[in-house]
Amino acid sequence: MMQVLFLEKGQLLYRRDYPTPKPEPGEALIRISRAGICTTDLEMVIGYRENFSGVLGHEFVGVVEQAPEAAWHGRRVVGSINIGCNDCDICRCQGPEHCPNRRVLGIQAKDGVFADYVTLPLRNLLAVPDNVPDETAVFTEPLAAALRIREQVQVRPSVKTAVIGPGRLGLLVGQVLALDGGDVVMIGRSRHSLERPLTLGLKSGLAADFADGSFDFIVEATGNEGGWNTAMRLIRPLGTIILKSTFVGKPQIAMSDLVVREITVVGSRCGPFAPALRLLAQGKINTQALIDAEYPLRQGLIAFTHAAKPGVRKVLLYPD
Amino acid sequence: MMQVLFLEKGQLLYRRDYPTPKPEPGEALIRISRAGICTTDLEMVIGYRENFSGVLGHEFVGVVEQAPEAAWHGRRVVGSINIGCNDCDICRCQGPEHCPNRRVLGIQAKDGVFADYVTLPLRNLLAVPDNVPDETAVFTEPLAAALRIREQVQVRPSVKTAVIGPGRLGLLVGQVLALDGGDVVMIGRSRHSLERPLTLGLKSGLAADFADGSFDFIVEATGNEGGWNTAMRLIRPLGTIILKSTFVGKPQIAMSDLVVREITVVGSRCGPFAPALRLLAQGKINTQALIDAEYPLRQGLIAFTHAAKPGVRKVLLYPD
Repeated sequence: MMQVLFLEKGQLLYRRDYPTPKPEPGEALIRISRAGICTTDLEMVIGYRENFSGVLGHEFVGVVEQAPEAAWHGRRVVGSINIGCNDCDICRCQGPEHCPNRRVLGIQAKDGVFADYVTLPLRNLLAVPDNVPDETAVFTEPLAAALRIREQVQVRPSVKTAVIGPGRLGLLVGQVLALDGGDVVMIGRSRHSLERPLTLGLKSGLAADFADGSFDFIVEATGNEGGWNTAMRLIRPLGTIILKSTFVGKPQIAMSDLVVREITVVGSRCGPFAPALRLLAQGKINTQALIDAEYPLRQGLIAFTHAAKPGVRKVLLYPD
Repeated sequence: MMQVLFLEKGQLLYRRDYPTPKPEPGEALIRISRAGICTTDLEMVIGYRENFSGVLGHEFVGVVEQAPEAAWHGRRVVGSINIGCNDCDICRCQGPEHCPNRRVLGIQAKDGVFADYVTLPLRNLLAVPDNVPDETAVFTEPLAAALRIREQVQVRPSVKTAVIGPGRLGLLVGQVLALDGGDVVMIGRSRHSLERPLTLGLKSGLAADFADGSFDFIVEATGNEGGWNTAMRLIRPLGTIILKSTFVGKPQIAMSDLVVREITVVGSRCGPFAPALRLLAQGKINTQALIDAEYPLRQGLIAFTHAAKPGVRKVLLYPD
């Protein structure tokens, strides 16, 4: 038996009676060290993906306790979250992220990491270098998601770039886009929200500070209609908007404006773990400034309430 | 005085008392030979761009009657529709299409071509080769708009491509995407609508004929919510949807679906005239099969009623 945060019909429950998972063939059993709460988790609790019932959570670092290959025993690991069928053209040619039969850790048909233990296929695991502490390694998954932008489109360091939403994901995106000298502005809704970007060396401003069409490249990281509308106002003709956050609901979109101004919109989801972990090991990404609180797993419901407050960045959980 | 189709507060009027335009410096006076009615014209009559008041129409071929350079006198010409300020960074670096101060022929602050005469700057004009008849040359503008897709994104001939909407623009898009051996399917809403693509050598089908995610690359050429929803169903993960038509209204869009499936959406508007005219001169695009009717300008209101009927392709106007 183990403790978990269990999602059922949009209700999050703390349970101590959940069966410890048994690894399937090819899977490791991993003891969770740290797990992070992200916006997707919060949205799932309010019903973004109503059909998931199971243990929530997909950002983690842990230690391998059982594995089909001895070399993994005792290794500290992070793990990518998509588990493909490994048998379709998409899995074979591109990887598991878009496999139509995929399971997704803590999101779709696979119990997640707000638990004492999780199981994952060995091919999803990546060993964490010794110099990367747990509190840093737990950011590998969201940092990979931020890096995904660089896998999808050419990020030109000379153009004017904005990130809408200086939150837990936006601040990783901003740092990733500034890696090669990019001119990045974090756009927030309150003066208070602009302070954290400054401590990370990122410029920041309110949307109202900028004229229409001020930016060539905008990452929408709020997942709400207000953020989208700000992006559409601030993007210049021929510019690109990256959708980096899932949306609750279906906003009304001025499609003709996309046509007349020839805007490109690119949806962006999971990214590459290996370069994310290299960046963390190289100390190029400040994650410490993103952590607002850590809670033991048994206080998980309080942690969720905390994480859902406006302006709160990363809240971590640890089994005790 | 001359005859025109005049748009005022969404009402289209036939007038015989409109002043013949006087060329501004750098402009030619052009006698219209043929003009084409496009979906944008129809949408403007029902209020897509309520602030335009003036002579409607932007697809034309005509003959230069006055010009500041003698070489243009008597030349048969087509003309690009965006008139930039020629003084801003966008005009200087990219051209007039996205100039914030632009006028657009028959669309924005510039009288259009449903008239006996129009004026345009010489730099907007392109001479029509002798072997291209008026009824073909009048397709230069919409063909350029179709070609714009190839200016914006890499069109890979090996991927599965669909064009939603086998109408006046869609059938040009389909031909343009098939130029280099592309596997293009025109998607229509009725069996009847699928016949015309076949006469053009294009494959066609109903949306219901295809499974979810059947296409890598889709051009949405209907400008309505049904077309968009079909595109979203038929596009595969990581696919690209080109928005080739302006939309009436603001449809509700499942933004999260764009994120989770990492779809790219690209708005697409005006395109390059020179390659369009070369294609027409080379006989590589069938425009004859797209013409449903020709009307004298004085029957312009009847022509508009005809052009607005479902399934009707191009309706041409000629001053008589």
